[in-house]
Amino acid sequence: MDLTETRIASERIYEGRILNLRRDRVRLPDGHEASREVVEHPGAVAIIALDNDKNIYLVRQYRYPIERVTLEIPAGKLDSGEEPLTCAQRELAEEVGLAAAEWKPLLTFYSTPGFSNEIMHLFLATGLRSHREKADDDEFLEIVRVPLAEAAAMALRGAIQDAKSIAGIMAATCILQA
Amino acid sequence: MDLTETRIASERIYEGRILNLRRDRVRLPDGHEASREVVEHPGAVAIIALDNDKNIYLVRQYRYPIERVTLEIPAGKLDSGEEPLTCAQRELAEEVGLAAAEWKPLLTFYSTPGFSNEIMHLFLATGLRSHREKADDDEFLEIVRVPLAEAAAMALRGAIQDAKSIAGIMAATCILQA
Repeated sequence: MDLTETRIASERIYEGRILNLRRDRVRLPDGHEASREVVEHPGAVAIIALDNDKNIYLVRQYRYPIERVTLEIPAGKLDSGEEPLTCAQRELAEEVGLAAAEWKPLLTFYSTPGFSNEIMHLFLATGLRSHREKADDDEFLEIVRVPLAEAAAMALRGAIQDAKSIAGIMAATCILQA
Repeated sequence: MDLTETRIASERIYEGRILNLRRDRVRLPDGHEASREVVEHPGAVAIIALDNDKNIYLVRQYRYPIERVTLEIPAGKLDSGEEPLTCAQRELAEEVGLAAAEWKPLLTFYSTPGFSNEIMHLFLATGLRSHREKADDDEFLEIVRVPLAEAAAMALRGAIQDAKSIAGIMAATCILQA
């Protein structure tokens, strides 16, 4: 069965700082019409930064949309035209103050394909050394270093509640065990 | 350090079918101001539906925002006032045509806390039997049954690229092995 939905019309609703919103009219596989709301996002990276003692780095920060402090793996949005690896290197330096000798793409996935095109590029960074870059002016965060195995346990018991972090930590755990 | 950001002002930009958008002015921990774009979402459920032979059910569907067909675990939005478990039971019946004797909450997480409040309630459903309910008129999907271990391998090799599905499949794999 062809599941494709085809755009009939598109209305720009909002052009913002970190996202845009549009509402499209689409043709469904059965020929009927429906509306689709799409949050346009530039894409992002996230990083499992693993040191020689099998610790990873987490970032504690306030997430305004959910009105909570979260623990997440380091992550950030792509600047316009930026390569995911370049972005990951920048974010690791800005958020955690680290550079890495080895970078390996682990996974690429969509955060919430039902309403947004945000794509997430997940990297494994090893061979870590100090390398501080200036962070964004409006980002306030604390760095937490925990064993990867403990991070996996934290995800399973609900102490880490961010989808990309859970996916990344669990995937890295499986890949590194294999 | 207190990381909290406090709302100063809020502007409603869009009230839609599956999401709303607002833009807030906030006070940062250092006293400066910043703007925050927030996609309001009613929350959702997702289901690891595991049969007696350790197969799980995946849904193949077209995701308009990313213009791709994806493989995901069954999932759906909460109706207004709906309990997550009720929603999960409804979605499993509508999307996969199954009911479950046992329901267990596995994880609760945020899909993309940087710009949305969407919360995802993940359940493990076992003791499966046929139970078809009528699906949404604008949903077209195909059901795929695969061994849980194969689903985990698919996530790791990029054949499943949906964050909640990767998080759920990897977490269920770990929990069921323990």
